Amino acid sequence: MLPPHTPVGRIGEKALLRRIRSRIKGARGVLVGIGDDAAAVETGALSLITTDSLVEGVHFRRGFGPDALLGRKALSVNLSDIDAMGGVARYATVSLCLPSETPLAFVDGLYDGLIERARETGVQIVGGNLSRTHGAIVVDVALVGQADTIVRRSGARPGHLALVTGTLGASAMGVLLMEEGKGRDGGLVADERERRCIAGQLDPAPPLGFGHAAARAGLAHAAIDLSDGLSGDLLNVCQESGVGAWVDADAVPTDDAARSLAEQRGADPLDLALHGGEDYQLLLAAPAEAVPGLRDLATRSKVALSVIGGFREGEPALSLRTRAGEAPLLPRSHEHFGSG
Amino acid sequence: MLPPHTPVGRIGEKALLRRIRSRIKGARGVLVGIGDDAAAVETGALSLITTDSLVEGVHFRRGFGPDALLGRKALSVNLSDIDAMGGVARYATVSLCLPSETPLAFVDGLYDGLIERARETGVQIVGGNLSRTHGAIVVDVALVGQADTIVRRSGARPGHLALVTGTLGASAMGVLLMEEGKGRDGGLVADERERRCIAGQLDPAPPLGFGHAAARAGLAHAAIDLSDGLSGDLLNVCQESGVGAWVDADAVPTDDAARSLAEQRGADPLDLALHGGEDYQLLLAAPAEAVPGLRDLATRSKVALSVIGGFREGEPALSLRTRAGEAPLLPRSHEHFGSG
Repeated sequence: MLPPHTPVGRIGEKALLRRIRSRIKGARGVLVGIGDDAAAVETGALSLITTDSLVEGVHFRRGFGPDALLGRKALSVNLSDIDAMGGVARYATVSLCLPSETPLAFVDGLYDGLIERARETGVQIVGGNLSRTHGAIVVDVALVGQADTIVRRSGARPGHLALVTGTLGASAMGVLLMEEGKGRDGGLVADERERRCIAGQLDPAPPLGFGHAAARAGLAHAAIDLSDGLSGDLLNVCQESGVGAWVDADAVPTDDAARSLAEQRGADPLDLALHGGEDYQLLLAAPAEAVPGLRDLATRSKVALSVIGGFREGEPALSLRTRAGEAPLLPRSHEHFGSG
Repeated sequence: MLPPHTPVGRIGEKALLRRIRSRIKGARGVLVGIGDDAAAVETGALSLITTDSLVEGVHFRRGFGPDALLGRKALSVNLSDIDAMGGVARYATVSLCLPSETPLAFVDGLYDGLIERARETGVQIVGGNLSRTHGAIVVDVALVGQADTIVRRSGARPGHLALVTGTLGASAMGVLLMEEGKGRDGGLVADERERRCIAGQLDPAPPLGFGHAAARAGLAHAAIDLSDGLSGDLLNVCQESGVGAWVDADAVPTDDAARSLAEQRGADPLDLALHGGEDYQLLLAAPAEAVPGLRDLATRSKVALSVIGGFREGEPALSLRTRAGEAPLLPRSHEHFGSG
C-alpha cells in the first residue's frame, strides 16, 4: 500500500499507469482500452471529436476544491461541447502532465472524479498518456462522441430567437468567492448561496442531453456551450452565422445566489451573467415557431429555458436592450492569453 | 502583418485561433473542422484513438531544433501508435498550452510542421484547444484512426519470433549530441553521422503503413512502437502476453551512425540500441512461417526488418544472448516520472 503523499516520481510512469488501468473496467463498445498503443472502439458513421484542457494556475488551483471535482470538471467541459453539437459522448482519453513531486493522492482523486462522471454519463475512459513536466499540472481530455444530426454555431439567421438554458453568473461568482478564501482546502461554507456558486465553478453541470434532444427534434438551428461567457459566445455565433444579435437585459437568467452575493458586494449581477463565463449552459438559435417544442423538451428534461434576445441582419455585433434604450454590448469574456 | 516575435498574449486566443484556422483547409471526411464546439467527421465501424504529449523541458527544448520539426514530431509519435495497432490515421486535434510570452513565430512554425506532416500522411487536423499556462509549453495531439484488423501488444506466444523494423539508437545519440551543443539554434552540423542522429531525434520517421499492412495480411500477432526503448517495450509485450523473451545481441540492428559516434565516445552502441528510446520503429511478434511474408512486405515498403530474438514460456522477463552466453536483460528505458 503506497501512502497517499507518495510523489508520483517515486512510483514511476509504468506503475502509475497500471494503477489507473486497474480502476477502469472494459465496457460496451471498447475492444481495446488503456494499455496498448491506441484504444480500439466501435463507432458509427459520424463521430464528434473535441478536446479541452485544465491548466493549473489558469483554470484551477490545488486546494481550491477536492481533486475529484477537478476530474469531474475535466470531463464535464468536454461533455458540454459534444452535447452542444447535438451528439452523445462515448469515449474519453486523458492526457496528464504531472511534476514528479505531485502526490499520488492527487492522481487518485482526479481519477475518482473522472470515473464517477464517466459512469454518470455513459462515457468510457479508453486511454491516455502520462508525462512528466517541470511546469504546471495539465489535465487534457479528448472526447469522442457520435451524432446523427449536428448543430453548428453557424446556423443562426435573422429573425431567430436566442435562448439559454439554466442560469448564469454563479460560476464566475464562485471564482470571486474562492479568491476571497471561501471553501479552500475543504473549508466549510455556511452560506447556501456561496456553496451554490462555488459548486457551479468547481463542478459545472451542463444540461447534458438537451442539445442532443433539440438537434434530433430539428428545433435548434445553432448552438454553442457557454464557456467564455454569454457576450463572447453569442458574438461568436454571430460571427460564424454572419448576423447581429440583441439581448434583452431583463430576460437574462441571472443566477439568484450570484445576484444576491454581487449586490452585497456592490457589483452588477448582470455583468456576471453577461461576461462571467464557465456556466456551461447552452445558447441556442431557433425560429419562434420552434420555441414551444423547445419548452416542452426543457420541461421534460427539467432544464430552465429563457428567450434572451434575437438575431438580426447586420454586422456580427451585439447590443443590449434595457428600459433606458439600446446600447452596444461589447464582450468582456476571458481570453485565455489575455492579461486576466 | 504581425511581426514574428509578437507574444501570443498580445494577440489573444481568438485571433490566434482564427490565424490557425485560416491555414487548415476542409477536406474529405470532415463535416465540421476547427472553430465549432467539436469536430464532426466520417468514421467507420472501428476507430482507434491515441494521444501523446510533448512537454517543454522534458521532451523538447526550444532552440534545439526548428519549431516546425516539433510540429512534425508531435504528429509522428501518434501516427506511430496508430500504425502499430494496424490502423490508418485520419483525424487529429491539437491542444496547446502556451505561456503568454510565447512568440507568434513558435506557433506558426509548429503549425508549419503539423500541417506538412498531416499532408504527407493523409491526416486532417480537425480541431484543438488553446490554453494559457504559467508553466512549460505542452503540445498534446489526439489522433483518431480506422482499422479493420487490430494487432495488440498481448498476442505474442511462445515460439514466436521478435522482429524490429529499421535501425535503433540514432535518436538517443541525437539527444546526447544536442546536449553537447551540436546543431542548436539552427547551427550547421558538418558530420553526416551527427546529422543523421539529430534528425532521428527531432524528426522521427516511423515505418508508417508497415504495421497496417502486416495486420491486414494477418502476419503480425503482436506489435508495439518503440518509444521507450527496445528493452522496455519488449518487456511490455511480454507482460501483456504473459511470456518471456530473449534477444540475440548480434541481431539487434544498431544504427551505423550511432554505433560509430558511440564508439568514438567510448560508449557501448548496443546500450543505445537496447535502451535508447524514441526510435519509433515497430517491434513485432510473429511465427516463423510468417517471416517470409513480412520480409516481402518490408522489401516492398523499403523497410529494413530484422529478427532479433524470440518469445518463450515463462515469466515476463528478458534475456540477452551473446557469444559469452545468456544473461538477464533489465530494461533501462526512460520512465517519464523518473529522475532521468
